[in-house]
Amino acid sequence: MTTLLALFRRPDGGDEALATFLHRYHQEHLPLVAQTPGLRATRVQHVKEALGTETDLVVITAMDFDDRPALDAGLASDAMRQAGRNLREIAPNQFTLLVLEDDPG
Amino acid sequence: MTTLLALFRRPDGGDEALATFLHRYHQEHLPLVAQTPGLRATRVQHVKEALGTETDLVVITAMDFDDRPALDAGLASDAMRQAGRNLREIAPNQFTLLVLEDDPG
Repeated sequence: MTTLLALFRRPDGGDEALATFLHRYHQEHLPLVAQTPGLRATRVQHVKEALGTETDLVVITAMDFDDRPALDAGLASDAMRQAGRNLREIAPNQFTLLVLEDDPG
Repeated sequence: MTTLLALFRRPDGGDEALATFLHRYHQEHLPLVAQTPGLRATRVQHVKEALGTETDLVVITAMDFDDRPALDAGLASDAMRQAGRNLREIAPNQFTLLVLEDDPG
């Protein structure tokens, strides 16, 4: 399994900015992501707290693909390109995208 | 679903230090975690790259529980206390623990 993990930091502008981001993320971004070919599962989770420390992370989304070639094909698709443009609009400089591979054990 | 997400940064000391951490993480830490009551699933993933940027993250592990009370009970268990002590030994100042809750949708 190869996972595209999106980590979102709290936007400037307080709770109103956060609410606006979350609204647009659900209404605009996730429907685009959902059209990505090869996407097996999407899991959106909210960061409730960091144990023993502080964090500026507010949302973490895991998007699963069968393997790295499937992820690369997904990233090159129209759906993901649109999703990327949308993300740069609704969350400028507010996210990190990581490519994760399952531990071989 | 409530997830305990552990994000591990690359240790000082280069590839040898990273290999030592990974070895002890698998041999010592994960067996302790596996004994945690209420733990539904554990997924260990390696960070292969950050898209468009750099990252110091090397491993991200998701530990799933039914809900927040189940997580809290798990955190209070002997297994998780031992796992916590182990983690501070094998990865001092190298990790962040986040509590995530599924998006209500």
